[in-house]
Amino acid sequence: MNSVFDPKDYIRTIPNWPEPGVQFRDITTLLEDAKAFRCVIDTLVQRYFDSEITAVVGVDARGFILGAPLAYELKTGFVPVRKKGKLPFDTITESYQLEYGTAEVELHADALKAGDKVILVDDLIATGGTLLAASSLIKRLGAEIVEACAIIDLPDLGGSQKLKEQNLNVFALCEYEGE
Amino acid sequence: MNSVFDPKDYIRTIPNWPEPGVQFRDITTLLEDAKAFRCVIDTLVQRYFDSEITAVVGVDARGFILGAPLAYELKTGFVPVRKKGKLPFDTITESYQLEYGTAEVELHADALKAGDKVILVDDLIATGGTLLAASSLIKRLGAEIVEACAIIDLPDLGGSQKLKEQNLNVFALCEYEGE
Repeated sequence: MNSVFDPKDYIRTIPNWPEPGVQFRDITTLLEDAKAFRCVIDTLVQRYFDSEITAVVGVDARGFILGAPLAYELKTGFVPVRKKGKLPFDTITESYQLEYGTAEVELHADALKAGDKVILVDDLIATGGTLLAASSLIKRLGAEIVEACAIIDLPDLGGSQKLKEQNLNVFALCEYEGE
Repeated sequence: MNSVFDPKDYIRTIPNWPEPGVQFRDITTLLEDAKAFRCVIDTLVQRYFDSEITAVVGVDARGFILGAPLAYELKTGFVPVRKKGKLPFDTITESYQLEYGTAEVELHADALKAGDKVILVDDLIATGGTLLAASSLIKRLGAEIVEACAIIDLPDLGGSQKLKEQNLNVFALCEYEGE
């Protein structure tokens, strides 16, 4: 029997990108591999198949690539959280801290409602800023977050810890330490 | 029997967005509806299930939401075409005309190869600039484009015609005329 699927076998590390000292974990090599892509989505589908999810929320833009197939397979709708200025209808907004300055994410005000049970999806958990802002948006609409999930967690950057301190369940398929 | 699925029943029109005079066709209401989202993806899956596709290429960012489930269902890899500066490895670049100035899209140089047969996916065909640039990138890597597809075509903006003049097959689930 061959070895069990490990996403890290398909993730490419780009040294010093986007800036010196950063080891960028590139998931495009995983997405481009039909079997690896399928294994990632299926891991999430199996994790949530019995959770009575009503929507999958994906974070702009790599979170769309994981969240949309998950929504399709769970037979739910897909809800995008987008960078500011991309959603055309009435929105609610949350800002979060970047290394220099702040950024904002938005959600359509009618995209979710009380009683919804959602999975929040992004590719990577680093400092957790985007996922925390996205989770605030979801909660402001009265929906429940069953879990926030990603392919990769970088635990040394503290994001997954911060999310857990906000009483969020967090799941990642793999992690890289010493970032 | 109820009526046949029509994506237009789920697409919301936002008048004067992002600027006066534009009728923005908002697909988020379609994506958020589990059955409508599923019908859109299934229409594409059924169209291409027998085409021996080796990859689905999605255009940043709404094209990711359609392309990723299509890749999952066709059991192919998913390849993102991204706005400039988002892909971390060696890229090839194409620029295209905007109303004011130009923009650029990129593809990883090792994402596709000669012999690949791909579907190119975006949400909307307007002037066709992004899809033409994306198709040039795919061809430069030697891959064959079986079809470029979208949920919506705005034929009066000339994009689908321009794509066809480049010998591309084009498919859209619905169209709005008089744009």
